[in-house]
Amino acid sequence: MRLRIIVLTLLSYFTLNSQTNQNNIDFIDKIYDFALSNGKSYEWLDYLSNQIGGRLSGSINYERSVKWSKDELELLEIDSLWLQPVMVPKWIRGAPEYAHIETSPGNNISVPIAALGGSIATPSIGISANVIEVKSFKELEEIGKDSVSGKIVFFNRPMDVTLINTFEAYSGTVNQRTQGAIQASNLGAIGVIVRSLTTTLDDYPHTGSTYYNGLSLNKRIPAAAISTNGAELLSSMLSLNPEIKFFFRQNSKNLPDVLNYSVIGEIKGSKKPDEIIVVGAHLDSWDVGDGSHDDGAGIVQSMEVIRIFKSLNYTPNRTIRIVLFANEENGLRGGIKYAEVAKFNNENHFFAIESDAGGFTPRGFSFDTSKKEFESLKQLEKYFKNYDISFFRGGSGADIGPLKDGKIILAGLRPDPQRYFDYHHAASDTFDKINKRELELGAAAIASLVYLIDNYKL
Amino acid sequence: MRLRIIVLTLLSYFTLNSQTNQNNIDFIDKIYDFALSNGKSYEWLDYLSNQIGGRLSGSINYERSVKWSKDELELLEIDSLWLQPVMVPKWIRGAPEYAHIETSPGNNISVPIAALGGSIATPSIGISANVIEVKSFKELEEIGKDSVSGKIVFFNRPMDVTLINTFEAYSGTVNQRTQGAIQASNLGAIGVIVRSLTTTLDDYPHTGSTYYNGLSLNKRIPAAAISTNGAELLSSMLSLNPEIKFFFRQNSKNLPDVLNYSVIGEIKGSKKPDEIIVVGAHLDSWDVGDGSHDDGAGIVQSMEVIRIFKSLNYTPNRTIRIVLFANEENGLRGGIKYAEVAKFNNENHFFAIESDAGGFTPRGFSFDTSKKEFESLKQLEKYFKNYDISFFRGGSGADIGPLKDGKIILAGLRPDPQRYFDYHHAASDTFDKINKRELELGAAAIASLVYLIDNYKL
Repeated sequence: MRLRIIVLTLLSYFTLNSQTNQNNIDFIDKIYDFALSNGKSYEWLDYLSNQIGGRLSGSINYERSVKWSKDELELLEIDSLWLQPVMVPKWIRGAPEYAHIETSPGNNISVPIAALGGSIATPSIGISANVIEVKSFKELEEIGKDSVSGKIVFFNRPMDVTLINTFEAYSGTVNQRTQGAIQASNLGAIGVIVRSLTTTLDDYPHTGSTYYNGLSLNKRIPAAAISTNGAELLSSMLSLNPEIKFFFRQNSKNLPDVLNYSVIGEIKGSKKPDEIIVVGAHLDSWDVGDGSHDDGAGIVQSMEVIRIFKSLNYTPNRTIRIVLFANEENGLRGGIKYAEVAKFNNENHFFAIESDAGGFTPRGFSFDTSKKEFESLKQLEKYFKNYDISFFRGGSGADIGPLKDGKIILAGLRPDPQRYFDYHHAASDTFDKINKRELELGAAAIASLVYLIDNYKL
Repeated sequence: MRLRIIVLTLLSYFTLNSQTNQNNIDFIDKIYDFALSNGKSYEWLDYLSNQIGGRLSGSINYERSVKWSKDELELLEIDSLWLQPVMVPKWIRGAPEYAHIETSPGNNISVPIAALGGSIATPSIGISANVIEVKSFKELEEIGKDSVSGKIVFFNRPMDVTLINTFEAYSGTVNQRTQGAIQASNLGAIGVIVRSLTTTLDDYPHTGSTYYNGLSLNKRIPAAAISTNGAELLSSMLSLNPEIKFFFRQNSKNLPDVLNYSVIGEIKGSKKPDEIIVVGAHLDSWDVGDGSHDDGAGIVQSMEVIRIFKSLNYTPNRTIRIVLFANEENGLRGGIKYAEVAKFNNENHFFAIESDAGGFTPRGFSFDTSKKEFESLKQLEKYFKNYDISFFRGGSGADIGPLKDGKIILAGLRPDPQRYFDYHHAASDTFDKINKRELELGAAAIASLVYLIDNYKL
């Protein structure tokens, strides 16, 4: 008798379980079908990229993108929608930069540069000086103050193309751009030129933030990215004649902080409304391209997740909140403010996912959580078998990072990384580099994971 | 004592085994490093695509590509290099096609079409007729001879965009193109228009072969692909007014077979020279684009495999043979001839791999072999862990298919399939659609697998 009850209980457990499995498989199938045959992400991105364009923090375009995304989310008739105010840095590029290599007095070859975000201007007549080329801060230290003083420092460490994950290669070189100005200034340099952080050889300068940290105003020096082809040319000329001079001119400017907004919307949970699931991306972009991959793709994918749930009449168990973060690129103020407000309001964030690695074919999800939690989450990987998506541990996304509290599960969409740095922070990051199917597959993948998480540990 | 011997034997076995593992890991690492930092596939493809271009069987461009690839392989100083003669169909497109939809008498909207490979011409003044739009042969049968007779049949079944694997979607629609003319002719139609087989909505007609099989000469009817946008337009107009007429004109022509060559080279095996490993792709392409993805990518990747082995001073155990097959697109004569000659010479083919699915990020290898053999091969998958490559059972490649004899292991490179049909058989299949890293990763993946197979079951 006992045994029979146990057997029956087990049977009903397995029946229930296999029923759940099948429901999950079916619903994820529906999500993918809808995203691929009825998707709106591509049309949205067309508008954001081509009608609005680059949208640096503090710019009129950023304000336009806030209005546009709020208007579009309003049409989805979600439960609530609001703007979260946040003070952001305002930096402007000013007139187009100009640079040349002076190969002999009066003989110049111009090369493409772009001021790094946050950089000060050169004097209006530009600066011209001899060049110290280095591959690392250590090398620069060894050359020493006497030799560096009065010169332009040229950081020329290329991204390691042999690394399969291009983001690793980026991590291995990005300090040249972020910290190069400080390092060079400390040794008396008057300017900094940084090899563009891209895996290609191209003619685009790839911009991005540079920081002066505590450096006093009078010690700040102008910093610019040079295209990789330009960097190769400069390096090759320096090896022939170390005495050649480099000239560059830029009139970028840091203005006082201004008020911007993150855009937030949510569908209230039916069972655990106090447990929040965040789906996010950053709405700002650099000014040089139209920010299609960084991070327009993530923005429209996040919007699409909400649209998919509404269209499929899915009532979530937990509250699903979309956050289009302000100011990721040069300040992360949107992400920091969001976490501050969440903490202040004592909100319970169960899960957050960010898409900020381009709109390419999704290949996996990276989870920032405990090993134990990950092992448990790994059970859900089977649902992505047909979609070529794998789970692994790693980082999540810059904007959701500040939510980390030891409890929340953080995740990031990981698309194929091979092409990302071709376009990253460059004028070539434009809508024509977006493939509709790849973009839609990313939206479907995020929606599927969010659906599974919404039903996880309920 | 006994036990000690067993323990020692086991220990030395595991040491040897882990030594082999490490050697494999190291060598594959070398292959990838070399392909990504020192690769030649991109430069080669630039030449093949931009200096030679589209290379349909029997064309002067095909002959140029034979000469070029033979010359390049010669520079690699491999053990032998020869041309394998094969008679191939010669079909020419002739003057540019023209088509329009006649919305009302005298009012025409032109739409992009391209004659299907093998199709006959229309009369020189073109043909104009009412249109029967169908999605399947069954539907056409049901409409029947009386209604179809004297009309143009418009096959408009789109590729299923909800299928994650676009090749499956292709398989589900390709019979419209290959068999449509026969089906329509049997019901008395005078021409065939086929919706382009692509997952996008674009303005390119995507060509490809059509066949008349046993159809007598006087029953053959002209067949052309219409761009997907054109197909949507035509369909929408037909739904408003089924009486509108379609006009098209093409002067394509089938000429007598001509002599072409496949290009074959090999590095002799040191331990089992009689066991042959084939690495191949097809050298011919359609005439409308420059055939960068189909199959220029596969050609330069195959060449790169040989170059990698030579550059890394790898002496293969088995004979590694590169085969650049003639005439895959409209006849498969190169592949058939190669297998015939191999059989005639009693050659022992151990393994063959083809790359003919585009130069995109490699995601896996598909193996056409017994379940048992596959289970054994699956042991090698671990070496691709860092390269995001998985093994599965499935098809291999058209050109190596004729080698199938129940013994040989066949395999195909499986790149990310999302973008392939954007460009497939269209004027948009051009070099600018190739990403250098993605192409190089494919070459490295094939070289790594070939290396492992060369050391497999030795």
